[in-house]
Amino acid sequence: MNLSQLERPILLLDKSKFLRNVARMAQKASASGVTLRPHVKTHQSADLAGWMGDFGIHKITVSSVDMAEYFSRYGWNDITIAVPVNIHQIPRINALAKAIELQVIIDSDFAAVSLSEGIAVPLDVWIEIDTGDHRTGISPQKIDQILRVAKTLSQASAIRFKGILTHAGHSYKAPGAQEIPRIHERSLASLQNIKQALEAAGYSRLSVSIGDTPSCTIVERFLPPIDEIRPGNFVFYDLKQKSLGVCRDEDIAVGVACPVISKSPERQELVVYGGSVHLSRESLPLPSGRPYFGQIARLKEDQGEWGAPVEEVYLSSLSQEHGKVTGSEDFIRSTQIGDTLIALPVHSCITASLYSEFHVLKDGVLKKFRP
Amino acid sequence: MNLSQLERPILLLDKSKFLRNVARMAQKASASGVTLRPHVKTHQSADLAGWMGDFGIHKITVSSVDMAEYFSRYGWNDITIAVPVNIHQIPRINALAKAIELQVIIDSDFAAVSLSEGIAVPLDVWIEIDTGDHRTGISPQKIDQILRVAKTLSQASAIRFKGILTHAGHSYKAPGAQEIPRIHERSLASLQNIKQALEAAGYSRLSVSIGDTPSCTIVERFLPPIDEIRPGNFVFYDLKQKSLGVCRDEDIAVGVACPVISKSPERQELVVYGGSVHLSRESLPLPSGRPYFGQIARLKEDQGEWGAPVEEVYLSSLSQEHGKVTGSEDFIRSTQIGDTLIALPVHSCITASLYSEFHVLKDGVLKKFRP
Repeated sequence: MNLSQLERPILLLDKSKFLRNVARMAQKASASGVTLRPHVKTHQSADLAGWMGDFGIHKITVSSVDMAEYFSRYGWNDITIAVPVNIHQIPRINALAKAIELQVIIDSDFAAVSLSEGIAVPLDVWIEIDTGDHRTGISPQKIDQILRVAKTLSQASAIRFKGILTHAGHSYKAPGAQEIPRIHERSLASLQNIKQALEAAGYSRLSVSIGDTPSCTIVERFLPPIDEIRPGNFVFYDLKQKSLGVCRDEDIAVGVACPVISKSPERQELVVYGGSVHLSRESLPLPSGRPYFGQIARLKEDQGEWGAPVEEVYLSSLSQEHGKVTGSEDFIRSTQIGDTLIALPVHSCITASLYSEFHVLKDGVLKKFRP
Repeated sequence: MNLSQLERPILLLDKSKFLRNVARMAQKASASGVTLRPHVKTHQSADLAGWMGDFGIHKITVSSVDMAEYFSRYGWNDITIAVPVNIHQIPRINALAKAIELQVIIDSDFAAVSLSEGIAVPLDVWIEIDTGDHRTGISPQKIDQILRVAKTLSQASAIRFKGILTHAGHSYKAPGAQEIPRIHERSLASLQNIKQALEAAGYSRLSVSIGDTPSCTIVERFLPPIDEIRPGNFVFYDLKQKSLGVCRDEDIAVGVACPVISKSPERQELVVYGGSVHLSRESLPLPSGRPYFGQIARLKEDQGEWGAPVEEVYLSSLSQEHGKVTGSEDFIRSTQIGDTLIALPVHSCITASLYSEFHVLKDGVLKKFRP
């Protein structure tokens, strides 16, 4: 692959950044004595999951039954599906739970009853708690409901009530990195209360699982009651994490390589072959309030890596297959039709989900699952 | 397929709406004596293109060389690739132009020279004109450049300089449907000027091609100098077109069927299995300024179609695999975990690009190209 003469946009992976990101999180989890069960929806690749195995990672989190089935085919036998169960997939869950250690999550009486009636093979079930993200999960105030769901689960012979789990996704709305530890601490306090209430009701050996890249990156040590962390995005990071103060430019491990196809010096714009179907429309606001869809880096001469994002150069609009790059006069002048630019993604998980393969810098192509 | 017990989100197509949308545009093109060369990036399906063939449509537009290759494999032999040429794909363009009638577009001296040097088999080349969208295309003010590019093309033995082409994409920013005919007329006036300047310079038998769904839908008759129209989105329409006043609810021909997996009556919210990877993050603003990512309809009892979108019910946020639906107390109360909701897309082309198949209501599954 000659990156300077690209036929179409491709997803690039900088393996050394990926490995460094994984190593850092694995060391922190290990130092805190918690299990790192990374959310592999970020890369959806058995090959990349395999690299994670070298850091002692043998349990994973996924976001769909289909993704769990994919990873189980590659030998992963301890998987949590961290989106509330779709009751119409109970037959598939039964089938998969026969083959591997499977965990699912629920946040309603209705799903608890459906699982109790439908699950025929041993299955671990977590109750999801809404510690502030207000997407899914039972509110920490509803101790009665949590106890009721726990009881329903415990009375089902095939089900093991595993514990309580949360995704503190409201960390993504933190006004700054300094607020993230406070969100994390409030989340932990809620989980601690619920755990105590459950223990008081006779449930023992419960586990507590948390997971969001901002908290897991910023927090220095994982304290009780945490048993397990499930960050996903940390393997790649992206511009959203950078904007939160969670990562630096040099931590961002994926980019989309795009050929330049049009140039308008008078508007200080370029157009790349690379649009919504290659980047996704995830955006961040510029100081003016206008959205941008990526920052732009250049390949270094030996093409073994890309440089820091060029200041004040942004993907400023996206069509289906092409995107507009707005930048300084100098940048536009020094870029030609046919050149390759690297678009750093706003949300790497969603960008990566658009591809069926990674092009590893200096190291060939890896296939991945694509939902 | 039992739509009321869905395992995962699927892309639904209402064939009768699709056919009605195609028939309407085909009749209008025919009445105006212009060629309808629809942009099939919207559906990317040889099967759906086949249905279009029944309306006398035998020429198509695509947005990538890969997509052109896909359709050529299904017997389409007259294809325009309507994104400026990526010069690194000239070898593939040569190969494809050997097999079919191929047209490409350019908007720079650089690409004109590259094509002139690289194209070895007969190829039609259009000069793209920027009539106001300011994405790609040469400005109508730059008559000198247009003449220079035309000359470069005309001097290349394998190239036929086909004419001038525009995409008046600024119609999507029209403050209301009544402004769209004015945008269209200004665009035509620019093209007419350029055509005359080219004719005065000795170029004859030039064609003029336009294409954007808002103009092509709103304008009642296509007048000279138009020879060809290339709308794409009109086959499906979507909430964006509805917001422009270009289509009605009953014209929207695709939706994503999503199972409900979580419910929060106190927040007046539901969560569906259906997220960014199923809908895309294209959004429209609510009156409050907050974005929404889709409207929600219910399946009718016999599942042969979906109803009108439920008033004041919106997909209010999207995660990777799940999305939040906010609505009235009544709507939330009357919807249960396990129910199926239909999310009508903001931008149907991008939503459809996320799938490898269509589920046709009451009529099986059709495969499609997926970039």
